[in-house]
Amino acid sequence: MKLKGQHLLSVKDISLELIEELFNVAETMRPYAERQKVTRVLEGAVLGNMFFEPSTRTRVSFGCAFNLLGGEVRETTGLSNSALAKGESLYDTAQVLSGYSDIIAMRHPQAGSVAEFATGSRIPVINGGDGPNEHPTQALLDLFTIHQELAHKGKKIEDLSLTLLGDLKHGRTVHSLCQLLSLYSGLKIQLISPEALAMPTKYIDMLSNAGHQVKVGSQLEEGLPQANVIYQTRIQEERFASQKEANRYRGYFRLNKRIYSEHCQPGAVIMHPLPRDSRNDANELDNDLNQEPGLAIFRQTDNGVLVRMALFACILGVEDQLYQYERNVNWHVGLNQ
Amino acid sequence: MKLKGQHLLSVKDISLELIEELFNVAETMRPYAERQKVTRVLEGAVLGNMFFEPSTRTRVSFGCAFNLLGGEVRETTGLSNSALAKGESLYDTAQVLSGYSDIIAMRHPQAGSVAEFATGSRIPVINGGDGPNEHPTQALLDLFTIHQELAHKGKKIEDLSLTLLGDLKHGRTVHSLCQLLSLYSGLKIQLISPEALAMPTKYIDMLSNAGHQVKVGSQLEEGLPQANVIYQTRIQEERFASQKEANRYRGYFRLNKRIYSEHCQPGAVIMHPLPRDSRNDANELDNDLNQEPGLAIFRQTDNGVLVRMALFACILGVEDQLYQYERNVNWHVGLNQ
Amino acid sequence: MKLKGQHLLSVKDISLELIEELFNVAETMRPYAERQKVTRVLEGAVLGNMFFEPSTRTRVSFGCAFNLLGGEVRETTGLSNSALAKGESLYDTAQVLSGYSDIIAMRHPQAGSVAEFATGSRIPVINGGDGPNEHPTQALLDLFTIHQELAHKGKKIEDLSLTLLGDLKHGRTVHSLCQLLSLYSGLKIQLISPEALAMPTKYIDMLSNAGHQVKVGSQLEEGLPQANVIYQTRIQEERFASQKEANRYRGYFRLNKRIYSEHCQPGAVIMHPLPRDSRNDANELDNDLNQEPGLAIFRQTDNGVLVRMALFACILGVEDQLYQYERNVNWHVGLNQ
Repeated sequence: MKLKGQHLLSVKDISLELIEELFNVAETMRPYAERQKVTRVLEGAVLGNMFFEPSTRTRVSFGCAFNLLGGEVRETTGLSNSALAKGESLYDTAQVLSGYSDIIAMRHPQAGSVAEFATGSRIPVINGGDGPNEHPTQALLDLFTIHQELAHKGKKIEDLSLTLLGDLKHGRTVHSLCQLLSLYSGLKIQLISPEALAMPTKYIDMLSNAGHQVKVGSQLEEGLPQANVIYQTRIQEERFASQKEANRYRGYFRLNKRIYSEHCQPGAVIMHPLPRDSRNDANELDNDLNQEPGLAIFRQTDNGVLVRMALFACILGVEDQLYQYERNVNWHVGLNQ
Repeated sequence: MKLKGQHLLSVKDISLELIEELFNVAETMRPYAERQKVTRVLEGAVLGNMFFEPSTRTRVSFGCAFNLLGGEVRETTGLSNSALAKGESLYDTAQVLSGYSDIIAMRHPQAGSVAEFATGSRIPVINGGDGPNEHPTQALLDLFTIHQELAHKGKKIEDLSLTLLGDLKHGRTVHSLCQLLSLYSGLKIQLISPEALAMPTKYIDMLSNAGHQVKVGSQLEEGLPQANVIYQTRIQEERFASQKEANRYRGYFRLNKRIYSEHCQPGAVIMHPLPRDSRNDANELDNDLNQEPGLAIFRQTDNGVLVRMALFACILGVEDQLYQYERNVNWHVGLNQ
Repeated sequence: MKLKGQHLLSVKDISLELIEELFNVAETMRPYAERQKVTRVLEGAVLGNMFFEPSTRTRVSFGCAFNLLGGEVRETTGLSNSALAKGESLYDTAQVLSGYSDIIAMRHPQAGSVAEFATGSRIPVINGGDGPNEHPTQALLDLFTIHQELAHKGKKIEDLSLTLLGDLKHGRTVHSLCQLLSLYSGLKIQLISPEALAMPTKYIDMLSNAGHQVKVGSQLEEGLPQANVIYQTRIQEERFASQKEANRYRGYFRLNKRIYSEHCQPGAVIMHPLPRDSRNDANELDNDLNQEPGLAIFRQTDNGVLVRMALFACILGVEDQLYQYERNVNWHVGLNQ
């Protein structure tokens, strides 16, 4: 398989063939993630979950994905007091840590750091986010979610009409998603943002060159009627020069039940990289949509577990052994209401 | 069983029937916790140990309890940098995190936060402490300890004469314990504190209404002779308006060997929620009592593991399967002196 | 065995007999650490990895070592917010935490703290570093590395000519190594440092009294030609009275390819406790040595896992059961280049 024994550092490393392989495996992970079955295929293996920048959800998602395959997780959170602060190179850190585990998932605040780390690692490294640069597993879980949501309606990725909404200038996740989408052609893609937060030209060109129909706009309503998938984003306030500047865009595009009913196709899929900002003056995706069947945001994070399980399984070459190490679930699953 | 597939959010949810069920199961956990046997009943299950407020002992106690049942633990410590800080609602956080594991234990600095979180969770949530509000597993382990300590003397809970001592105004643990005790009736309960740190009327009334004989006092010696269980507390200095005010009560009630020998029944049980403040000017429970057989404070924390194991087992419905997944311990247990 | 059911608190507790036992077991750990085999000998056991002072590499090394034996790890990082900050004694902390796991590895910023903790522990405690005082597992992995590197050349520890280089005043690791070396006699030991950072007389006397040939110098080149093992250290800047004073020694002794080729024996072994400071003005061990076969610094950290696995196995008395719990590795190991 393509991924066996390889790093996953960038969406640039990802081919259509790899996506197909990975998504097939991800789908086989569902019974384990949903606790219909247990697999212990990686019992005895250790993940080094090295988060040199804190991130509860991504860190826990990687860790649980590895646990769900039967493996153990050792981890770190935060940069301070680490050897890096004493002048150690990322090469050295990688040489040391790669002697401790079987595979590493790593997040680090500095762009390019994970790739630099990988040069010193003796084991496969997955980029869990390197600052403003890349977050390839998020892009993969986003594309996987689009794939699954369309499939549930009997549609294929070729039928996608996608509207990206909000802060398209700073959103690392929408940039990475655009890169993955550029592996396809002939899709309809609408990019709707305040003008000052428009998608960088680089990505617009990338999409156009791939042969997609790209439409750019700045009014919320322009992007809604034609979309079967709407990808809303949070204003990345921490990336603005000042809070004052950021405040100009707080609550600029709000999607709520009224707007959804009036402007969107029935059952249109709503995605969001999360966290969504639920404070009153931001509220880009209203809680009154929580019961809407099209709201896919929590299926999206659930899919993150499937995709990360698939990545671990493919990189460690155990994707065909899941059944061999399978058991029944002997505990009660979920809530009794 | 009562607990299967349920949250445990508040002592208010706890009935006598549930206590009986839980304590019976807790007692069956002893051979596993004391390493006479290993059980792997939860192998493949994952606990989300979500401590949004740091707490070494409670966090590690929950985590070890789950490990002792064979399960895996993913965890987080602290609130900063988490999605909550970016305006995410507790509902969203719960939806996301509940897709990662089988059960969640959660601590959070804000009163009511764990219950709010539970509304968004798709899996059972155990309240590990929500700020000044509740800490139901502490109340349960306290009651379980009273139960066990009396049982070792051939006594029942009906024979309890309990003295609560110290900062009864701020002590979350003594408030929760009073709520649990109100499920019973006819006990003797002495509430001894500096007047300014008296038990809130609400809890005194609750105990009286339940039919207990309640006595309130402000002198240490008044509470000691009649008690077969003494529950000493720490002055919760962090809860006072100023350190100066807190200092007025430092070392106000000190229990030491001399006082214990002079005023207490022989073998009277001494409990404390821990940590005890062993600094000279506080020292509410002197180290010269460390060899006293009645000192139950470390049996109390050991019991915390039993109670948390029982909660996990009952909520996940595996309390009858422990033996099936049982093995012998193949390593050396404890210290060779 | 010597170690069964015992604490490991100080290099002073270590005898030649214990070293021999431990190193023999450490060597049997290699197939498990290098993923040729899996052993689950400690499945069901729990390590309390209590790092009251953060240290990514030592913490993760202990944790992975325990995972590689099949056990579970619960851990803590940092001192703040812990019960210790509320005036709890180390004795109490130990009583509580030792009710949660089977063995504890502990680091703490205060000299003597781990030994004090051990007095309250009901289970074995391994000192993972107590401030400026001791770090016995580092000393053991250093000695094990010397042993292995000489063995690969058909030499024994009796053939050692060791040069310790750099900040010999503050380096906890070189002090502990000298203590272990004093169990032997007749070795050649060169101590090369800036005069102000010389090895304390105590350790020089210890080495001399043991019957070693000790030579003290302050020029890099004096120490290189006769050595078959060179142990370079980092200037411990955080231990100086001021950064200004520390700066006087930054980059004072630099070992690079040119110096190594000119002054050292062919294939001379280079060790370093890591992290090495790779910033340009420090750079005590140049990256141009990274491909040099004699550079043992990453074999040294790999050996740390072997030594810690051996310690766990011997203290818990399972060193003869590894094979019984052995399995094949069913996943792909390492990188496909």
